[in-house]
Amino acid sequence: MTTVSAYAAPAAKAPLERTTIERREVGEFDVLIDIKYAGICHSDIHQAREGWGEAIFPMVPGHEIAGIVAEVGSGVTKFTVGDRVGVGCMVDSCRECDNCKAGLEQYCTQGAVMTYNGVGKDGEPTYGGYSQKIVVDENYVVGIPEGIGLDEAAPLLCAGVTTYSPLKHWNAGPGKKVAVVGMGGLGHMAVKIAHALGAEVTVLSQSLRKKDDGLKLGADHYYATSDPKTFEELAGTFDLIVSTVSAPLDFGAYLGLLKTDGALVNVGAPEEPISFNLFSVISGRKTLAGSSIGGIRETQEMLDFCAAHGLGAEIELIRADQINEAYERVLASDVRYRFVIDTATI
Amino acid sequence: MTTVSAYAAPAAKAPLERTTIERREVGEFDVLIDIKYAGICHSDIHQAREGWGEAIFPMVPGHEIAGIVAEVGSGVTKFTVGDRVGVGCMVDSCRECDNCKAGLEQYCTQGAVMTYNGVGKDGEPTYGGYSQKIVVDENYVVGIPEGIGLDEAAPLLCAGVTTYSPLKHWNAGPGKKVAVVGMGGLGHMAVKIAHALGAEVTVLSQSLRKKDDGLKLGADHYYATSDPKTFEELAGTFDLIVSTVSAPLDFGAYLGLLKTDGALVNVGAPEEPISFNLFSVISGRKTLAGSSIGGIRETQEMLDFCAAHGLGAEIELIRADQINEAYERVLASDVRYRFVIDTATI
Repeated sequence: MTTVSAYAAPAAKAPLERTTIERREVGEFDVLIDIKYAGICHSDIHQAREGWGEAIFPMVPGHEIAGIVAEVGSGVTKFTVGDRVGVGCMVDSCRECDNCKAGLEQYCTQGAVMTYNGVGKDGEPTYGGYSQKIVVDENYVVGIPEGIGLDEAAPLLCAGVTTYSPLKHWNAGPGKKVAVVGMGGLGHMAVKIAHALGAEVTVLSQSLRKKDDGLKLGADHYYATSDPKTFEELAGTFDLIVSTVSAPLDFGAYLGLLKTDGALVNVGAPEEPISFNLFSVISGRKTLAGSSIGGIRETQEMLDFCAAHGLGAEIELIRADQINEAYERVLASDVRYRFVIDTATI
Repeated sequence: MTTVSAYAAPAAKAPLERTTIERREVGEFDVLIDIKYAGICHSDIHQAREGWGEAIFPMVPGHEIAGIVAEVGSGVTKFTVGDRVGVGCMVDSCRECDNCKAGLEQYCTQGAVMTYNGVGKDGEPTYGGYSQKIVVDENYVVGIPEGIGLDEAAPLLCAGVTTYSPLKHWNAGPGKKVAVVGMGGLGHMAVKIAHALGAEVTVLSQSLRKKDDGLKLGADHYYATSDPKTFEELAGTFDLIVSTVSAPLDFGAYLGLLKTDGALVNVGAPEEPISFNLFSVISGRKTLAGSSIGGIRETQEMLDFCAAHGLGAEIELIRADQINEAYERVLASDVRYRFVIDTATI
């Protein structure tokens, strides 16, 4: 066991504070990672405040982890000391179900082991990236290509793959009109990736406050959803809408923006049930779907894609003692576009 | 103009009664059809009672029409006097939009002209199949193959194509597990068609009351949704669920029955908004979708498929003076499985 500095929420809704946690010994197939940067994801806040249901405390959030391999187990073949690596939302899964075998570990029928707020196969709670070291089985570690800074790479491990996966699955590309709802941590990556995939990209944001940024990051069009004219003007326009917001939307209105056979895919998850009239999907054979992060293979594919296209996240680097303030700013949509913790300050 | 006997609802929620209506002269591309049989669809009742919003009265419902061609216009090339033909939910559309050009007239971006409770291109209200004759442009008429009785063919024009279309679109076939929710007019056709397509078919019905029928019509399994164990036992089972019911379901529970990447497709439309938690689709990249009838080409394809597989609807033939009673029995789910009006009694 190794004692490691970390930032943890001692109880639901309590502020995060400095503490120490124990990391397991490096096993045969394990990689010990010196964490350099950890992104702050909106879902860290949902979970630290038990917005998604009962959680495990103390909680060390963080599933956007970038660092350097410090030690490898005797059976490790994929990584070597000094490698630039990342860890996302999962650190294990059953490896035997159809989904695991298909590279869809995020949909493991036994339930993947989440990077934090989960329970490992050893029965111990998992602790995330707001810490200085982590030990992870090599099969749940990905390589971060040269050409992306580790700081701007960290958010790709969740925000990047969460948007890349549905954009690929629902065929965003040349000739397709794609809308991105929300211009936050996930949304700004969705814009960059959809643009790099060759789609015509429209941002649907509450206001035009971030319009200049949106256009700079690759959007072709930018509309305010607070303006009812937006929904008239864009009716029947999109092949695909990716919603990154976790506030409940007027889903009937957004479904009205789709073409026949279009899909509205949600990667943001409101805590409350959503509601809409089924006519909104029956008229036009439309789809309302969801998508959760991405598999390990796909996460590597996404990192390679981002490196090839020069894409990283837009970040605000913070010290660990700014985490609680950062949470408030995330809730106020006051971040451009992802807080990343310099873990040297933990 | 030709005066034709019909059954009409004079006002919303009023009982239907015998009346006469005028049919237009047979135009260059028109077909005059002697209607022999007209099915009673649940949506006739929704509309006659304004459950789906404001409607046009007097209303002659009926969009499951089977009959014999009595006269054709000079430009008609597809049909000749004496042909066995059918008319479904649409009698016209813009013919110019991408959807019309793709054979998806039901999703015409200008709005298709519905067979009743619609307004034709001549500005006149449309009247449906509860009548003795109808005049329809040949492009919105389909041929009923020999081998299907006209009486059992009538319901195929709506119930048949409404279920055939999503089953084909979402790839029901060998190796696929398909559930059909509801064992009524649409549901019993969904069972027959999904079985004929080669899928493994499960009926999810409120009770086991119609189990023997379901198995006889082609279902491999039959479960009662009133039994909570059904939802435990079948969790994660289906590639596709086609819901034919217009009562609001516990959508979270039904989405839980889907495999990863599965789709719950609604062809029944509750009058009220539905509600569920988005996690139900995010976990497992699931789809909640809708589908509306089918295009004209697909309707012909469905009729040819049904004839090739010896499929017709299971019907109870009634006289016109039984229509109001039949409506009450449809609302009480007391029909096996479709009322068809013998239009000679109108």
